[in-house]
Amino acid sequence: RIYQIASIPGDGIGVDITEAAVQVLNTLSATLRTFQFDFKTFDWSSDKYLERGWYMEPDGLEQLKKHDAIYFGAVGSPEVPDHISLWGLILPIRKALNQYVNVRPTRILPGTKSPLENVKNEDLDWVIVRENSEGEYSGQGGTSHEHSDHAVATEVSIFTQVGIERIMHFAFETAKSRPRKKLTMVTKSNAQRHGMVLWDKVFYEVAKQYPEVEIDKMLVDAMTVRMVLHPKSMDTIVATNLHADILSDLAAALSGSIGIAPSSNLDPTRKNPSMFEPIHGSAPDIAGKGIANPVGAFWSAAEMVRWLGEEAAADALMKAIENVTAAGVKTKDLGGDKNTKEVTEAVCAEIQKL
Amino acid sequence: RIYQIASIPGDGIGVDITEAAVQVLNTLSATLRTFQFDFKTFDWSSDKYLERGWYMEPDGLEQLKKHDAIYFGAVGSPEVPDHISLWGLILPIRKALNQYVNVRPTRILPGTKSPLENVKNEDLDWVIVRENSEGEYSGQGGTSHEHSDHAVATEVSIFTQVGIERIMHFAFETAKSRPRKKLTMVTKSNAQRHGMVLWDKVFYEVAKQYPEVEIDKMLVDAMTVRMVLHPKSMDTIVATNLHADILSDLAAALSGSIGIAPSSNLDPTRKNPSMFEPIHGSAPDIAGKGIANPVGAFWSAAEMVRWLGEEAAADALMKAIENVTAAGVKTKDLGGDKNTKEVTEAVCAEIQKL
Ligand SMILES: CC(C)[C@H](C(=O)O)[C@@H](O)C(=O)O
Ligand SMILES: CC(C)[C@H](C(=O)O)[C@@H](O)C(=O)O
Repeated sequence: RIYQIASIPGDGIGVDITEAAVQVLNTLSATLRTFQFDFKTFDWSSDKYLERGWYMEPDGLEQLKKHDAIYFGAVGSPEVPDHISLWGLILPIRKALNQYVNVRPTRILPGTKSPLENVKNEDLDWVIVRENSEGEYSGQGGTSHEHSDHAVATEVSIFTQVGIERIMHFAFETAKSRPRKKLTMVTKSNAQRHGMVLWDKVFYEVAKQYPEVEIDKMLVDAMTVRMVLHPKSMDTIVATNLHADILSDLAAALSGSIGIAPSSNLDPTRKNPSMFEPIHGSAPDIAGKGIANPVGAFWSAAEMVRWLGEEAAADALMKAIENVTAAGVKTKDLGGDKNTKEVTEAVCAEIQKL
Repeated sequence: RIYQIASIPGDGIGVDITEAAVQVLNTLSATLRTFQFDFKTFDWSSDKYLERGWYMEPDGLEQLKKHDAIYFGAVGSPEVPDHISLWGLILPIRKALNQYVNVRPTRILPGTKSPLENVKNEDLDWVIVRENSEGEYSGQGGTSHEHSDHAVATEVSIFTQVGIERIMHFAFETAKSRPRKKLTMVTKSNAQRHGMVLWDKVFYEVAKQYPEVEIDKMLVDAMTVRMVLHPKSMDTIVATNLHADILSDLAAALSGSIGIAPSSNLDPTRKNPSMFEPIHGSAPDIAGKGIANPVGAFWSAAEMVRWLGEEAAADALMKAIENVTAAGVKTKDLGGDKNTKEVTEAVCAEIQKL
């Protein structure tokens, strides 16, 4: 079986870590010999945007649709305002390909540790389910009286019954599939009294269909406190686009480094390809230096392999990554002294032992 | 000089800690003998709401305006939906009394420590300046097709040139008054391309008037990572209503406990009374048990005293609080075994030594 993968390295360290991920994925398929990857690279990036005036070709989304999955590095450059680059590349893909779920698992990998003093590695094991299609990222709003001293700008968050229901179902299914069967729902419905109140309401409605799942509700501000002080008290977490964006970065920091954290942008209907990307950004300050932590990229690659249906291969890749961190082969952000290439080769060597 | 203080204990532990704060403030004035407090208590609470159908009398805001300052405990009850209680009490006060700034200092008090392993007490010393009048807390938006399977709800965030300018000026002045003269501005202008972009723009414009202040810009998600991994790299922080709400809770957790964190809702024009409240909520689970940490309430009281112009008294109160934590007289959330009354009496005893 050959999987067609669209690869979008993008900007900054996105390029470094995508190269590393492709090497690891090819090593995995060459070792297992039960499937292959056919990568097609898209040179969509901020550099190219500055040259050509666009990120994706007009038929870019159509091209992506021909693939089984998308591997994404990072987007963002000091040369382009961030709202231009993100709305030129990553956000339209998530939206147009119906990737309405963003899954962000967080664990403390073997051989690494939390910056929190009293947290043992097994205490922090979360899956954040992020609504990925609406809410605070709807893109709606605008500016009036621009360039005057009384300018007014709005950001309009849209929450729909359909949008909330489908993310809640995904979150409950995720919670149900995990040993602890626990779902924590995050909101800010005390201050935001329209969309957030609908979010709460739909949560409790959907909950009735999952009596086996234990639920609780948190306000987003209090949630950060709970993550820091009582990490063990949570398992699966569901939150809006913005809240989960914030909480998943915090989760990554509490698990040791933003450099290890993966994300999966999923279309659960499988009508469109899903997209896999580490949650760290393009980190222009260390781009091209060969020192970026590729672990988040590898973990994202493992999630891709799993989504493609190759469970055993995904497990094997995760095991290889964990053996490498456990052996202390780590980049600086994890307290190690290895570079991207050394970590990549160590993971490939582990795979070859399979 | 007699200061007229409106006291609103509100719900849950708000009642416990307001009582403690009043005791401490009266001890302070009785000891110093240079000023007095005349407290008027307003029984506005969720219990009363359930009884009477309202939180404030129709002329409630007018009554508050007759005071020099407002001391607020907490609002929120399991019996009333949070958006009803908050929009019935705390949010209208902040808005109607033009309290457009919310100041939230964070430090690790002597005798307490951060849950972060490698953080020394002096490494974490922040002031979060929160926009308190608009943004995500504008209250605008609504719901269509309610009770149908295609309901749509919106939350509309409003950002105005005037609103952003005034909070930026306050933030720059705060940064300028502190030894490090450093201001970090937080936004999410990569994903939110209207209001957040205006926020960025005004920040850079206002910055030109404060060349002595060193500035940098963070995305709110990455900011949580920086707070966990590099606390020392920041000093004054300015953020929107929602972002600062989230970050200040995280800050409190990283400094040891949400129970110690103060907040000042300020009208910098001084045309209206400002309001002082600990940032913790009503904590219904421990209400009335006499075990709530009163330190956040005392620190808020000290900020009130400072705002009233009694600098020396404010310093003395802070010193008393710090002597008490340093001596290990602490509630459970800070790793101690004392109750509210014991901590309160210890602080009063310290004040009496003045
Ligand atoms: C790059 C940016 C638009 C993105 C987001 O906010 O979704 C990133 O922070 C993420 O978490 O994937
Ligand atoms: C009670 C609630 C409305 C409030 C807020 O979100 O502003 C609280 O969380 C705070 O931080 O003061």
